[in-house]
Amino acid sequence: MSIETVAIQGEAGSFSHAAARQLLGEDVRLLHRPSFDALFQAVDTGEADRGLLPIENSLAGSIHENYDRLSASPLHIVGETQLRVSHCLIGRPGSTLASIRRAASHAVALAQCRRFFAENPQIEPVVVYDTAGSVRDLMKGGLASGAAIGSRLSAELYGGQVLREAIEDDPRNYTRFLLLSRGTETAGAPSKTSVTFVLHNQPGALHRALGMFASRGVDLAKIESRPLRGRPWEYAFYLDALGDPDGPAGEAVRELASSAVSLRVLGSYPASAWREDS
Amino acid sequence: MSIETVAIQGEAGSFSHAAARQLLGEDVRLLHRPSFDALFQAVDTGEADRGLLPIENSLAGSIHENYDRLSASPLHIVGETQLRVSHCLIGRPGSTLASIRRAASHAVALAQCRRFFAENPQIEPVVVYDTAGSVRDLMKGGLASGAAIGSRLSAELYGGQVLREAIEDDPRNYTRFLLLSRGTETAGAPSKTSVTFVLHNQPGALHRALGMFASRGVDLAKIESRPLRGRPWEYAFYLDALGDPDGPAGEAVRELASSAVSLRVLGSYPASAWREDS
Repeated sequence: MSIETVAIQGEAGSFSHAAARQLLGEDVRLLHRPSFDALFQAVDTGEADRGLLPIENSLAGSIHENYDRLSASPLHIVGETQLRVSHCLIGRPGSTLASIRRAASHAVALAQCRRFFAENPQIEPVVVYDTAGSVRDLMKGGLASGAAIGSRLSAELYGGQVLREAIEDDPRNYTRFLLLSRGTETAGAPSKTSVTFVLHNQPGALHRALGMFASRGVDLAKIESRPLRGRPWEYAFYLDALGDPDGPAGEAVRELASSAVSLRVLGSYPASAWREDS
Repeated sequence: MSIETVAIQGEAGSFSHAAARQLLGEDVRLLHRPSFDALFQAVDTGEADRGLLPIENSLAGSIHENYDRLSASPLHIVGETQLRVSHCLIGRPGSTLASIRRAASHAVALAQCRRFFAENPQIEPVVVYDTAGSVRDLMKGGLASGAAIGSRLSAELYGGQVLREAIEDDPRNYTRFLLLSRGTETAGAPSKTSVTFVLHNQPGALHRALGMFASRGVDLAKIESRPLRGRPWEYAFYLDALGDPDGPAGEAVRELASSAVSLRVLGSYPASAWREDS
């Protein structure tokens, strides 16, 4: 297989980059995009072969805005991976934790390291929009008292020194990423199918929908309802069905499609087990 | 009814404060706590009569860590409300948008106003752990070029001037809050019951569980699966059932309790419709 280009949101060393390496190997060629919309656009236009999109986090839940982008896009899910999100305090080579007075990172990363800042009140958190970029800038000529918070990968890529590992408050921090493509071809046999659908809010409507899977012995890896704003009596659902899409799982999806208000198949792809570490 | 004390995470003027006023009126007496754990503790020990806890956001999804706290706690849900989360740029009286060079707020609020900062590159975002507190501090003696990002309520409470309203990237930003109590008494007739439960991961297990509600004509307001870390073949579910808990909804919950691996009733309470504005 030729080396493909994968669009991610963020810089080299970001968690999206770490996820891309985990799923596709160290030689993956990346196209860095400043926003999720620009990521979709890069794959749409063919600038990138694939895109890698965060879709849910084990602490923070489903990223509804990215489900919205997926639902509105013609791209297909062709793979997935779960990345353990662990934050490092990264300084310039030779610096020590005691010398650090400022630590820059993305706002969400700072929020996930609240305990570290409480225990180290001499270190001021500084918000930046690009965590890996802040590591890069630090190495280019930052102050000795400056540090950044980012992935171990970003320290390795930019020559930073990891001063403290795993400074996130909660170690049960995993993000699931989806690999997106214009086509439906997958690297392995597809074993999971993701769909979004809308049902009229009638008692038992979801039960009937799930019966289409249960009666065929098809197991579900995810089901989630989401209220539709402005349509108080309708719900959207996210559903991941396990099994060969050419078998009973696909039959169930087609039956559901024929009875739902609307249904969109987001893709069929090889399922990745939740990893306990990475 | 005597005025009760409600524990919230955050300062006067926080979105939790705004939610408490929306649900319980302007005269609500608040107990401010620095963390969600401290909020639970305040209600547990009787220091506060109630607690108000954010549980899901329309963009960011379910707050799993607060579901975890709820599941581990003996407290009951006795009410709910949905708050429209809208951010204001708040300056000192007499200041103008053109004079502002720094804007302080909680990391997550800053992350939700990315477009505003892109369009106003002369304003540097500054991360603080307490948005409303940053408004208060600004009014006490901040620089004329300083501003904070927070709720309209925080501007009103501390005498700040709203320089720009609704600077969040996405206006479809609502947070659902749950009212917690040691007892089960509710202000109105309960019409929604929230449970968490664990099922063995057998094909059709969820379908059978939902059948207990569907066969009784009980409608669901929420269903969400969550993988259990370390137990790859089991799932936890969040479920909200509509209807009188003394009627068919309660019967269905009891039938489910008798067949699930585990089930916890989080509470029965008056349902609040999703509000289109607040």
